[in-house]
Amino acid sequence: MSAVFREDHRSIAELIAAQKAGYSLDQRFYTDPAVYELELDRIVYRHWIFAGHVSQLPDPGDFHVRNVAGESAIIVRGSDGELRAFANVCRHRGSLVCLEDQGHVDRFACPYHGWTYDTDGRLFAARNMPADFDMEAHSLRTVSIGVVHGLIFVCFTDDPLSLDACRRDLAEPMAMFDFENLKVAAQKTYDIPANWKLSIENYQECYHCATAHPEYARMHTLMLDHRKRDRFQQKMLDAMAACGLRDIHIDRVDSAAPPGEMGYGYSRTALFDKYLTGSRDGQPVAPLLGALTGYDKGASDFNFGPFSFMLAYSDHIVAYVFTPTAHDSSKCEIYWMVRGDAEEGRDYDVGELAWLWDVTMISDKEIIVNNSKGVHSKYYQPGPFSGMEKAERSYVEWILRELQRADEDL
Amino acid sequence: MSAVFREDHRSIAELIAAQKAGYSLDQRFYTDPAVYELELDRIVYRHWIFAGHVSQLPDPGDFHVRNVAGESAIIVRGSDGELRAFANVCRHRGSLVCLEDQGHVDRFACPYHGWTYDTDGRLFAARNMPADFDMEAHSLRTVSIGVVHGLIFVCFTDDPLSLDACRRDLAEPMAMFDFENLKVAAQKTYDIPANWKLSIENYQECYHCATAHPEYARMHTLMLDHRKRDRFQQKMLDAMAACGLRDIHIDRVDSAAPPGEMGYGYSRTALFDKYLTGSRDGQPVAPLLGALTGYDKGASDFNFGPFSFMLAYSDHIVAYVFTPTAHDSSKCEIYWMVRGDAEEGRDYDVGELAWLWDVTMISDKEIIVNNSKGVHSKYYQPGPFSGMEKAERSYVEWILRELQRADEDL
Amino acid sequence: MSAVFREDHRSIAELIAAQKAGYSLDQRFYTDPAVYELELDRIVYRHWIFAGHVSQLPDPGDFHVRNVAGESAIIVRGSDGELRAFANVCRHRGSLVCLEDQGHVDRFACPYHGWTYDTDGRLFAARNMPADFDMEAHSLRTVSIGVVHGLIFVCFTDDPLSLDACRRDLAEPMAMFDFENLKVAAQKTYDIPANWKLSIENYQECYHCATAHPEYARMHTLMLDHRKRDRFQQKMLDAMAACGLRDIHIDRVDSAAPPGEMGYGYSRTALFDKYLTGSRDGQPVAPLLGALTGYDKGASDFNFGPFSFMLAYSDHIVAYVFTPTAHDSSKCEIYWMVRGDAEEGRDYDVGELAWLWDVTMISDKEIIVNNSKGVHSKYYQPGPFSGMEKAERSYVEWILRELQRADEDL
Repeated sequence: MSAVFREDHRSIAELIAAQKAGYSLDQRFYTDPAVYELELDRIVYRHWIFAGHVSQLPDPGDFHVRNVAGESAIIVRGSDGELRAFANVCRHRGSLVCLEDQGHVDRFACPYHGWTYDTDGRLFAARNMPADFDMEAHSLRTVSIGVVHGLIFVCFTDDPLSLDACRRDLAEPMAMFDFENLKVAAQKTYDIPANWKLSIENYQECYHCATAHPEYARMHTLMLDHRKRDRFQQKMLDAMAACGLRDIHIDRVDSAAPPGEMGYGYSRTALFDKYLTGSRDGQPVAPLLGALTGYDKGASDFNFGPFSFMLAYSDHIVAYVFTPTAHDSSKCEIYWMVRGDAEEGRDYDVGELAWLWDVTMISDKEIIVNNSKGVHSKYYQPGPFSGMEKAERSYVEWILRELQRADEDL
Repeated sequence: MSAVFREDHRSIAELIAAQKAGYSLDQRFYTDPAVYELELDRIVYRHWIFAGHVSQLPDPGDFHVRNVAGESAIIVRGSDGELRAFANVCRHRGSLVCLEDQGHVDRFACPYHGWTYDTDGRLFAARNMPADFDMEAHSLRTVSIGVVHGLIFVCFTDDPLSLDACRRDLAEPMAMFDFENLKVAAQKTYDIPANWKLSIENYQECYHCATAHPEYARMHTLMLDHRKRDRFQQKMLDAMAACGLRDIHIDRVDSAAPPGEMGYGYSRTALFDKYLTGSRDGQPVAPLLGALTGYDKGASDFNFGPFSFMLAYSDHIVAYVFTPTAHDSSKCEIYWMVRGDAEEGRDYDVGELAWLWDVTMISDKEIIVNNSKGVHSKYYQPGPFSGMEKAERSYVEWILRELQRADEDL
Repeated sequence: MSAVFREDHRSIAELIAAQKAGYSLDQRFYTDPAVYELELDRIVYRHWIFAGHVSQLPDPGDFHVRNVAGESAIIVRGSDGELRAFANVCRHRGSLVCLEDQGHVDRFACPYHGWTYDTDGRLFAARNMPADFDMEAHSLRTVSIGVVHGLIFVCFTDDPLSLDACRRDLAEPMAMFDFENLKVAAQKTYDIPANWKLSIENYQECYHCATAHPEYARMHTLMLDHRKRDRFQQKMLDAMAACGLRDIHIDRVDSAAPPGEMGYGYSRTALFDKYLTGSRDGQPVAPLLGALTGYDKGASDFNFGPFSFMLAYSDHIVAYVFTPTAHDSSKCEIYWMVRGDAEEGRDYDVGELAWLWDVTMISDKEIIVNNSKGVHSKYYQPGPFSGMEKAERSYVEWILRELQRADEDL
């Protein structure tokens, strides 16, 4: 904790009120544990978080575990074929019930005292309990779960936002890439010793790409100011139709989300001339997705709520999930997805598929940590956003809005 | 610290009042540093803790150091033959005086400025002090110490509970195993990254033995519900007298302790048929203790206050001392003791002697850590104790009672 | 945090008022994070800290970075030849601007978004900023810097104390050793997991030298009580003039500093007979400093404010800078300096030059950590200073005085 806290007696409501539009956040949003506690309650546990693809859990009894900010959720396909999510906490004395990251079970047996739960969460067996013990009242507690065209989302509140608008409005762009029938080819987690907002802000802007990401920057015109991007963008638009892609632009992200709904967005941006996809040499790294018939030299950005982002090239999709692990640390889980019938070895090589975003994320981690160090200084003061940080500005404004909800509590 | 704290403005007194009988403790008892601070004051520093056997310090000048929750005590036999305990803190500027874990000294010389203390704690030498410096007023501060039939206990308060009732009522069972003349054959410390109560609760119940401890469970009928245990228990009772053991049952533990006295308890439980003692193959691992003349196929539980437990087989005794190291970490020190005249190599092998409780403690450590993870979840809620968790229930009720003492301070 | 905090509801002002003259500090000065926050504000960021010798940055564009208690300062020689210091924090979104410890630049380019600053701190380039963006208003923030006869000092406040009195009164002793023309031959940082005051208090007294530092103690008569030191001291005084040294004694340290000025001090103490300098065998390890013409068998202590101390032998100078890194950790940076025209290999060997204070600091680190452990005990209580701890006593009294300034805030 920095010395500046002592002098700074402002409440969180005062901090929010003092925040200058178009400027980065005040230091305390990144450093004060009390802000983090509020964020967990108002933001992290209230919003949907991507938790895998349905193809990862094809059969009844298939499960995997996802951890978010100290919470652990078991996502499991029940004997009725339905996906469900449960808090990974035994109703007896609170042990983790499931210690494996993924697998297949008939039932979940708590490793401590052997309480056993069905895949629909109901308590199946508990030895030596009193005669009046109510088995029905001791099911695993549910975590909210929703599926959007093959993507699984979880939310750590019983009263989550609706996914309907996202499901409806993203139906067409998601169909173009056949999200329903993807396959997770690779998955990797990056621990970042910095506040979660610094991690997501980094993802939200490409102002840093030219400076920090030579690999990314040589492929993606997003690293250009939008005015310089027009020539490339037009070429892509001209090539789209022949490749089976429509020009769609949806911006219901952050504060533009429909009331009561998770935010979402879609857009497509050109790659530089030599690049068919986001790969080392620009050449395909997997078969074309869905019904696509050719490479338009573009890449699509998908937005699913505040923590989950995806980048759809024509032959693979990269998903990024950023979540806090503590007030001063966060993680990014990356999924690399290809069409469902692609075969490793024959149709794709994991090393080539994952190359770009592995090197990019490793660089970003270092950048974010250096940002965090400076933000902790007493000399840090919020600075002005550039023209290329609009999405980030929109994001931090949304953060402030969410923190203000029910501000009588602040 | 979990998000639930922010919402939870209840005082500790309110938390205690809200605790449901027969259910595990509320999350905050395991996670809130303020609860831990109170526990240190009301429980950890007020109660006796096992600190070794008198045979470890046979001669004047023999000492060993015991560390409990940030405190360090030197236990030393003085030139008059008496055992004393001192805070390991120099009266000059506070350095640790004794850096060795054990050894033999004429005097303790502080490694910082060389202030030197006699084995009775008196300041013997201090260079360059003013003429009016009062040597007598700068003795090492005393830690309370008591001996119960060969067992050394320390207590980090000047006004500890009496040991008289324990000494009197356990005289007979302790004499059966000749506690006065034991020898510490092995000693090991296990660090457990979880709140100390989770560690002790784990020791207090054998509901988890069937699930978690195959090695223990195949030997000890304690893993059975008490109704299923009767047949074995009767066999043991029938064999007892011939082996030199009397059937004794004492339950003055926890809230049943006599007023002003340390709690204590004694009972003996059968082993399964093949097992003479708690060893890999059930065969003896050391000579019979005391005046015992045979194996009754039983094991005795001794209880000495809230932190120290012993299991007496017919040929060896295992002592367990659980203490906190911080609000979210604890340790278990295990002592393996045999009869005082046993010789390593000839009469016992340390590997075989220590095998069972080393593997069991290593399993327990993992179990306790997984319990801790789940207990930190916002989905954790206290769950009902089984019929096999009565001792644990009694223990947590005692914890709550101790925390309430002088509740005007809460 | 120790249990004693809970019981101790005294404010910092009450703690200060209760402090007994001539005794070591109350536990909470070493353990309470709130005291540390106050110290950062009242002491650490208000006082000058040694940050290298001008010879380390001879040319325009030469820079090095110094880190103090979470702050990072870039010290750079500008194109006009002036030394300046800047907070290492980008005015855009707060990243560290300079990741190297030292080097040479034309401009500093932030690794995040490429904002570029001149060596005089002015923002030189920032892409894609709005038309009304005020470049002039986004210079790097300045850290105060001052040079005293070749020594660079920084201060993390805009309104630092004057260096004039120090510069004037130490002119003669510093000239004797030609501080203007030194060269840094070696530099090493020691991390000490203990509160910064325990580290500096250790440096302030030689009461522990006899006990803890056999290497130092066999050379320096400072390890003696001053009455026993007289014979050696007189011999040194007799030899001084012939060696080109004058007998000077200045004590404007701590509370004796002139109002509004940084404290400073100078004195010279004899070495034991065999020792010409502070080296393994007492023989020279570098050429004589400045205009010195022989070895008087003495070593001079220089004091520069509360964090920076130097020991000038006749052939080399050792500088010690102690700063906190957190409330429970600190570091000591040691510089070994020789005359500016000395050449490594020919005139000095770094291993021999650095030997004494490397072994001494490694011992001190262990001592300080053991002091810290004891100070955290509930049995710790402030103890009386010896006659050989006068400088330390003066130092802690000054600490208390500084903490009381503007005590309406406490």
